[in-house]
Amino acid sequence: MSKKRILVAGATGFAGALAARILHRHPELELAGITSRSDIGARLDSIYPRHRVPLELEELDLDGLDGFDGAIVAYPHGAAAPVVQALHTQGVPVVDLSADFRLRDLATYAEWYGDHGAPDLVEGAAYGLTELNRAAVQGASVVANPGCYPTASLLALAPLARSGIVTSAVIDAKSGVSGAGKGGGDFSEVSENCKPYGVDGHRHLPEIEQELKALGASGGLTFIPHLLPLDQGLLASCYVELSRPIDAEELRGLFDDQYSSEAFVEVVNEPPGVADVRETNYCRIHPRLEWGGERAIVFAAIDNLWKGAASQAVQNLNLMLGLDEGQGIA
Amino acid sequence: MSKKRILVAGATGFAGALAARILHRHPELELAGITSRSDIGARLDSIYPRHRVPLELEELDLDGLDGFDGAIVAYPHGAAAPVVQALHTQGVPVVDLSADFRLRDLATYAEWYGDHGAPDLVEGAAYGLTELNRAAVQGASVVANPGCYPTASLLALAPLARSGIVTSAVIDAKSGVSGAGKGGGDFSEVSENCKPYGVDGHRHLPEIEQELKALGASGGLTFIPHLLPLDQGLLASCYVELSRPIDAEELRGLFDDQYSSEAFVEVVNEPPGVADVRETNYCRIHPRLEWGGERAIVFAAIDNLWKGAASQAVQNLNLMLGLDEGQGIA
Amino acid sequence: MSKKRILVAGATGFAGALAARILHRHPELELAGITSRSDIGARLDSIYPRHRVPLELEELDLDGLDGFDGAIVAYPHGAAAPVVQALHTQGVPVVDLSADFRLRDLATYAEWYGDHGAPDLVEGAAYGLTELNRAAVQGASVVANPGCYPTASLLALAPLARSGIVTSAVIDAKSGVSGAGKGGGDFSEVSENCKPYGVDGHRHLPEIEQELKALGASGGLTFIPHLLPLDQGLLASCYVELSRPIDAEELRGLFDDQYSSEAFVEVVNEPPGVADVRETNYCRIHPRLEWGGERAIVFAAIDNLWKGAASQAVQNLNLMLGLDEGQGIA
Amino acid sequence: MSKKRILVAGATGFAGALAARILHRHPELELAGITSRSDIGARLDSIYPRHRVPLELEELDLDGLDGFDGAIVAYPHGAAAPVVQALHTQGVPVVDLSADFRLRDLATYAEWYGDHGAPDLVEGAAYGLTELNRAAVQGASVVANPGCYPTASLLALAPLARSGIVTSAVIDAKSGVSGAGKGGGDFSEVSENCKPYGVDGHRHLPEIEQELKALGASGGLTFIPHLLPLDQGLLASCYVELSRPIDAEELRGLFDDQYSSEAFVEVVNEPPGVADVRETNYCRIHPRLEWGGERAIVFAAIDNLWKGAASQAVQNLNLMLGLDEGQGIA
Repeated sequence: MSKKRILVAGATGFAGALAARILHRHPELELAGITSRSDIGARLDSIYPRHRVPLELEELDLDGLDGFDGAIVAYPHGAAAPVVQALHTQGVPVVDLSADFRLRDLATYAEWYGDHGAPDLVEGAAYGLTELNRAAVQGASVVANPGCYPTASLLALAPLARSGIVTSAVIDAKSGVSGAGKGGGDFSEVSENCKPYGVDGHRHLPEIEQELKALGASGGLTFIPHLLPLDQGLLASCYVELSRPIDAEELRGLFDDQYSSEAFVEVVNEPPGVADVRETNYCRIHPRLEWGGERAIVFAAIDNLWKGAASQAVQNLNLMLGLDEGQGIA
Repeated sequence: MSKKRILVAGATGFAGALAARILHRHPELELAGITSRSDIGARLDSIYPRHRVPLELEELDLDGLDGFDGAIVAYPHGAAAPVVQALHTQGVPVVDLSADFRLRDLATYAEWYGDHGAPDLVEGAAYGLTELNRAAVQGASVVANPGCYPTASLLALAPLARSGIVTSAVIDAKSGVSGAGKGGGDFSEVSENCKPYGVDGHRHLPEIEQELKALGASGGLTFIPHLLPLDQGLLASCYVELSRPIDAEELRGLFDDQYSSEAFVEVVNEPPGVADVRETNYCRIHPRLEWGGERAIVFAAIDNLWKGAASQAVQNLNLMLGLDEGQGIA
Repeated sequence: MSKKRILVAGATGFAGALAARILHRHPELELAGITSRSDIGARLDSIYPRHRVPLELEELDLDGLDGFDGAIVAYPHGAAAPVVQALHTQGVPVVDLSADFRLRDLATYAEWYGDHGAPDLVEGAAYGLTELNRAAVQGASVVANPGCYPTASLLALAPLARSGIVTSAVIDAKSGVSGAGKGGGDFSEVSENCKPYGVDGHRHLPEIEQELKALGASGGLTFIPHLLPLDQGLLASCYVELSRPIDAEELRGLFDDQYSSEAFVEVVNEPPGVADVRETNYCRIHPRLEWGGERAIVFAAIDNLWKGAASQAVQNLNLMLGLDEGQGIA
Repeated sequence: MSKKRILVAGATGFAGALAARILHRHPELELAGITSRSDIGARLDSIYPRHRVPLELEELDLDGLDGFDGAIVAYPHGAAAPVVQALHTQGVPVVDLSADFRLRDLATYAEWYGDHGAPDLVEGAAYGLTELNRAAVQGASVVANPGCYPTASLLALAPLARSGIVTSAVIDAKSGVSGAGKGGGDFSEVSENCKPYGVDGHRHLPEIEQELKALGASGGLTFIPHLLPLDQGLLASCYVELSRPIDAEELRGLFDDQYSSEAFVEVVNEPPGVADVRETNYCRIHPRLEWGGERAIVFAAIDNLWKGAASQAVQNLNLMLGLDEGQGIA
């Protein structure tokens, strides 16, 4: 049986290029085309030598998509929607790495990103945090791949949120520079520095709020990202007020119930470092209690470009195409 | 008038060596002796070329201290107390960089550090967070220089704590590797990593609790330090529950009242990065509100080796010796 | 057919742990045992979470080696020889990561490392720079895996040396911290620094000299390593005086003749960065000419822990066991 | 006596901003104005908080320069010449940080930088490598501040070049990212990387050639810069063929004769690291011999933004204005 043919649209950004790398080595999928809006004709391995993807970048031809069995779109927010629309119209299952299909509420979307380019597709899109929405992803034709901060934060908070005991939460998040994309951080400003940013409202805040609410959490949410002097890695340190005290056994039970059968979530007994998950699809989580069980602290570490973007996109694509979700990323 | 002669005891650690560097360039104090427990006979500039202190390391002679007009002790916790005792007995004003005289309660001290080597001196020692205890420092013969985390955390929280509106607080702190002292971090483990540590109880927690309580804060305190892949720099991100909502004007007023006349505290309108204060005695603070004023967020950045250790020690020594506190560190 | 069973002796150092990781994922070899001299009973993934090798560290039992079909030994210089001897005696093909079997001349060995623990095995050991000694490796029962600096330097210089036109050479080499092994670099000394070291004679110098001579190079050799503020990566910048001027075509021809059929050597048209080969078995080489062709400059980049140690060991082991050399490392 | 009033033209780049910081703290000079081509009206401390220069950026008024007693120009190559011309015409002594007045030969200048904007001033400009051209600097009204690579390379090679025994030289140079100016290095490309660049000809090559020839060196020169994953720091590793063998005593004598009375050049007995000179005006040099004295190796470390740019500019300005050259930078 021939391999299914996959397109990566927007392969010159960090996440798109990494998706191309993963698909190029995928045992059951074929990286059949890579496109970009610049560098047409260049081979991807001339731009990202380390990824060693010898394909040539082409211009995206929206009328010639029928040769693909699936697609990952890595366009900027706003620019992604029409591309996703075209793929969808031509029957190509698509995982979108942008924010365009993450927010259910079009007014909220407009507030952060402007007019939506394909509003009719929003309702049908699945929110692709695989471990929390597997069934929806499997049946979807459009999957909105979560943001990197939401991925770590929601995996950290889901077991508590689903049990209905979250009163309020502070997410103090730390991310490497690659999270901001190409050209996202000048070495001289980032090196030997650590700084909060986006404090007046980060784009990932409404996404986290939407999903936390869907999981059952109520109350106030504070989300403060910090920029770290490293390239890949994201740590969410979550401080959660609980509506009633719980003990260590109950805490552990909540996390085990949620994650014990998950291949890519590791619940561990000590705080994770981002290096523990570097260049993997793993999320490594350590929950603990304080104040007689009235406050939970949950640390979650991911690689922002892998589980926070490209490898989770492949995990979702695998599911959509009926493959084992770990193919090519384990 | 001849310059006052200062001893640095324990000059081969990071903080002691930096204190020696600052004193060697001090306009009104003379670095008259440097001692250590190893490397006797070596010149300090052979160990720390960048500091360019051409003095030779000597063995500490506890019977020959009368030639000094002041001292900074940079010994490990526990080892410092007898040295401070000896200096005090011989009438030498001393700033101690260890934790030995920070905790008022000897039982708490014993829990974290073991038996105390000079318990009679504890009560009389001033807690040298200069901006919060200036009067006590000026009159003291023994000053306990604060830990690096307490320095940033307490400067961040003092204006709120003193106003009596702090219900509880989370301090998510991030520090560079030098905070752990010489040999404190293997490059291969720290680089490209970020990790919480000391989560079962960091030694700076009782120190912060003691001083916060003294300032008027009640309620629970969570303190989680994280190790950053950088050498010098410390950021405390503090999330504070307030007993009543306040507005931006009141918030700013509280911080201005506390710090507007302070030379080394900068209250600013956007979040500080640790690079903003690198190799300075400054603490840079940004307070803000969330949730309709029911939660305050305060960021404070310092250099852990300067304001968090050596330069604050000189600031305190200046005061004890009747000099302008900014001499040699501005 | 069942997989061949491989032992990694000395799996807690950087190179041994990485060899274990590679073998644990190897499609045709089974990581059947890992041993160490410390941490007996601990699981390797508790020490190196990122490698995700769930095996338990055992004590090495020199009398119970007959269950293995091959071994990689990652002991310190001097300690490796008796372990290699024991494996050899019991008929287990072995790749040794130490320097114990690299130097042909026992007097030279003694000068740098002391008495040799298994002198009778030296002559029969193959020098495992795979691309330059493939035939010898295939037939060997003991392979001395090259040092990281020699690997990059010799791959850079071999095409010129074999053509007999090298008059003298300067190798200005730069390496990441992991090259010095665990605990090899304190963050505070390495970060924001770059420094030559080993200038009075680095242990890799006689190894490079021996092999260069064997390849046909004569004349003086200068080898100066520098420590870089990064973890993994090694760049050798080689400046070569030629006995006669050559042109660009001849230069390129020499490198193509040597490497055009090599899977793991990339000869490219612009200088490589060490990030291009990070966590791969590739060596990336760029040769060029100066001064009318009288001087050649050759840059070669490898990952010091992969091609410079663990992945090249697996490449050699594959060959010794009759497998495709790229199995598990491509 | 009132302090002399100094202008920094182009204060928003790294070197200009640092010059402003140094002058703002200068005991005998007054930073009387800072200008830029962007950010007019902004305070410099809003752009570079760490420098703490509270002055406002103004537009440069070429007709209103008579209120200044000296100037440092930190414009890009090509744009500097007319500004230097205007200052010179109005009698203001000027140190220019660009390459515009470094190259004596206008044809060579044109080859690298295009047409010259003030060719008549070239001949009269002094080349401001202070230690090698002090007399010329003292009497000059226009000083061309050297490039960072030439500064380290020429200080390393001058004692050998002046003795007439240099046959050829290889300069393998390594620099931090700030050497490329603002926006010069994306963190994701620089971090965990090390790469040669400018191999087809770096702009500093003709400058080094010109000055080496003036010092008496003949023969071929190879200059290869490498980019390091650090912010500030430059190391030149120089490999020099000598026309006759010399011994260690003669070597040391040559360097001592040249530098023993220099305040800012340290000749030391072991290789320097760039951290040894960080944020100082020092150049730290270690010379050694190989091959029976036929080859010399000289390492020189500087801070590329300090001795390689801003602090050397102040050193030169001090001399031009009749002050002690170390004022404000020691």
